[in-house]
Amino acid sequence: MKPLRAIAYARRHSRRFVEGLKEFVRFPSVSNQPKHARDVRRCASWLAHHLQSIGLENVRILRTKGHPIVYAGWQHARGKPTLLIYGHYDVQPPEPLEEWKTPPFEPVVKGNNLHGRGACDDKGQLFAHVKAIESYLRTNKALPVNVKCIFEGEEETGGSESFEAFVKQHRRALQADAAVISDTRMLGPDRPALGYAQRGDVRFELEVFGPRRDLHSGNFGGSVHNPIQALCEIIAGLHDADGRVTIPGFYDKVREWDADEREYMRRTGPTDAEILRDANVPSSWGERDYTLYERVTIRPALTVNGIKGGYQGAGIKTVIPARALAKLSIRIVPDQTPHEILELLRGHIERVAPPTVGVKLRMLAGSYPALVNRNHPALKAAALAYEKGFGARPVFLRSGGSVPAASMFQKILGIPTVLMGFALPEDRIHAPNERFHLPNFFRGIETSIWYLAASSRLKKSRGQQMQQGLPT
Amino acid sequence: MKPLRAIAYARRHSRRFVEGLKEFVRFPSVSNQPKHARDVRRCASWLAHHLQSIGLENVRILRTKGHPIVYAGWQHARGKPTLLIYGHYDVQPPEPLEEWKTPPFEPVVKGNNLHGRGACDDKGQLFAHVKAIESYLRTNKALPVNVKCIFEGEEETGGSESFEAFVKQHRRALQADAAVISDTRMLGPDRPALGYAQRGDVRFELEVFGPRRDLHSGNFGGSVHNPIQALCEIIAGLHDADGRVTIPGFYDKVREWDADEREYMRRTGPTDAEILRDANVPSSWGERDYTLYERVTIRPALTVNGIKGGYQGAGIKTVIPARALAKLSIRIVPDQTPHEILELLRGHIERVAPPTVGVKLRMLAGSYPALVNRNHPALKAAALAYEKGFGARPVFLRSGGSVPAASMFQKILGIPTVLMGFALPEDRIHAPNERFHLPNFFRGIETSIWYLAASSRLKKSRGQQMQQGLPT
Repeated sequence: MKPLRAIAYARRHSRRFVEGLKEFVRFPSVSNQPKHARDVRRCASWLAHHLQSIGLENVRILRTKGHPIVYAGWQHARGKPTLLIYGHYDVQPPEPLEEWKTPPFEPVVKGNNLHGRGACDDKGQLFAHVKAIESYLRTNKALPVNVKCIFEGEEETGGSESFEAFVKQHRRALQADAAVISDTRMLGPDRPALGYAQRGDVRFELEVFGPRRDLHSGNFGGSVHNPIQALCEIIAGLHDADGRVTIPGFYDKVREWDADEREYMRRTGPTDAEILRDANVPSSWGERDYTLYERVTIRPALTVNGIKGGYQGAGIKTVIPARALAKLSIRIVPDQTPHEILELLRGHIERVAPPTVGVKLRMLAGSYPALVNRNHPALKAAALAYEKGFGARPVFLRSGGSVPAASMFQKILGIPTVLMGFALPEDRIHAPNERFHLPNFFRGIETSIWYLAASSRLKKSRGQQMQQGLPT
Repeated sequence: MKPLRAIAYARRHSRRFVEGLKEFVRFPSVSNQPKHARDVRRCASWLAHHLQSIGLENVRILRTKGHPIVYAGWQHARGKPTLLIYGHYDVQPPEPLEEWKTPPFEPVVKGNNLHGRGACDDKGQLFAHVKAIESYLRTNKALPVNVKCIFEGEEETGGSESFEAFVKQHRRALQADAAVISDTRMLGPDRPALGYAQRGDVRFELEVFGPRRDLHSGNFGGSVHNPIQALCEIIAGLHDADGRVTIPGFYDKVREWDADEREYMRRTGPTDAEILRDANVPSSWGERDYTLYERVTIRPALTVNGIKGGYQGAGIKTVIPARALAKLSIRIVPDQTPHEILELLRGHIERVAPPTVGVKLRMLAGSYPALVNRNHPALKAAALAYEKGFGARPVFLRSGGSVPAASMFQKILGIPTVLMGFALPEDRIHAPNERFHLPNFFRGIETSIWYLAASSRLKKSRGQQMQQGLPT
């Protein structure tokens, strides 16, 4: 196996690779908006054809209750370990549309960046692995390890729900020695980072019901509890003045870390100033006694992601609205579980909801936190690959976000996941004007090539079977 | 003058009158949505032609900085008093559209009701006076009093701002002995009510700014103050647990009423049970020590009319949004003034706004509360007219809403306003499926006919000049 030949190929074909990525980004594969269901399917179909065209085998578009999963494999590396490569081809909604400087689904290169929804999260990062595989197969006619690529279409809906059922159902077929996911951030263009921990989450809607129909606020203002106000009261009450969540029992299962781990985090992680600069806010907020890096990784957090109620157009309409709705998410950490947190939340809302309004709590999705030992060989192999690809040793980082697949691979398949992110803090993930730093795309491809090479030296896990593709 | 001939005419032509009202309602004259500016102008033009066609004189469409004002007069009743008839041809926005059972601007009669946005507020009520005038002019070729009809197009934007400038500019031309406005509610189909007091208001937007762009709530949740949360905290803090507004000094200028007035209110006004039934809510809310009728009339109230922030579509999008916005209004009572309340509010917001976010307060509109002595001859004439028109003595009621014109007539012209409402509590003013009870339309026309007759016996106010229309 000659990684250098693959690298040379990748460099020669970089412009074509960008054109391919643009085609991929052009699909508005917004998984949580029903109007885009067809676009999601078309995107899956395009991806499957593409995987076939680069020489992967056993390509399948697998139906689920939700959006399809695209599978492709290559398993002719006798006696070598197997790598599970995960990514998601679905994207976040582009709203608010008026804030995009170029249309979200008309990808365009400006300077060093490719702009478009999904360019970075996760199409661009997923594509780096695809192009690494292509570069190997075109130059060596083989890969140094066995691979199982599994690209899902429901990551951005929150819980990768269909994916979880799928992994459970096919746990034997998906067996591998390690998984790799590129869906996290580096610290900067020259500062690669390997994720070894991520938060889980619980996502839900909270709806408050007042009068059966909108009321004139002149005629009734002062006599009826306003559902927007009641919702604000409940939300305001979810944190105390110190930024701590007030739900009783909320912190009971939160693991406390010893001085060594916190010292390691202080040494390797971003500083408060760096996090504030990335967030572009003048001042921090949250639990005192924790650095900002700690607050977003080893501490849970409750966030209001959206709110609506009453009249929202131009001017004003003097109503007491019939209802108000908020969308919230709680990021959880070991050893909290989605189910326990939801139950605590439910009990809390029942206790604090005022009797003057109706309140409904709807669970949307949930995922477990995940954690990998920093000394695991799979992470060491990844560190080596990064050093070759980016010319810099990666730091080991915790992530504040949630990649549900990583916790599923840990829980269901019993394998570690390498979180090998190529995103930059300024890539505007989930926000208008999302972009992908193209030098990171190219270095990502080379890093993936080196990682495939390095993984061939991983010890095979016991009981691993060389299944040819998936039973469907 | 023969009111009975006019009454007979009105009864003969009732079906045609309803058809005319339907034409009027068909215009989507939504004054606070810029996209409907042309519809507002077309509606004004239709109304002017209609007033001309029934025999009113000096018909004008008067430009303002905002929407036009329609004027028409008839001033040949020598030596008789002059009545200023006010109404507004603009309507509230129809949103939320999905809750309408029939399209808001395709008026349709179902049973005893005409359904459509503006059917009741205020096109239908305004039209009752127009049809009364028509009935008189067609049968008597004259009116028993001089009239100046003035119909504006910015009442629903909040402050009738252009109208206020207009009244100030033309204070001499608009001089009259009393004004009548039909834009308030009765207690029930057989329970007419004359308004003698109304609340004023202050309408504003409160916007909270957080990060400069939406952030991923996984990466930053727990370290950055969420603008939705900060907005909820500010809003929740505007009331204490007893439903009282917490703005310091807020109640200082609120007039306390003596036991006699409160006893009168208890005898004549709606009971708590009636108000709850009208609101269609199971339980009340607000300042203890006050009946619900008192809470919505002699007590000020702060209401959140709308809120928005972050992601509002299907599913969830895990962002910390860049901003959140609420629309609020404060109903004020004598002797509060819009300006003083706004200043108290501004000071309060500055004090409570957390340093972790930016906060902006934008005034949208304001109006003064208004009050008329219940024993004023203009109200007695109106009571007599109601008794003839509805076969029942009206009660004298306070209104919780604001008709800015009434306070302007009091403040600028120095004349009392009769609030002669024909709306029913169940007419769904400002809400989806607004409707007008047609028996009230017909009785309203007859009441207006009797009121024109009774007003001819009012004493003319000193200094009143028989101006022929308006200088433009």
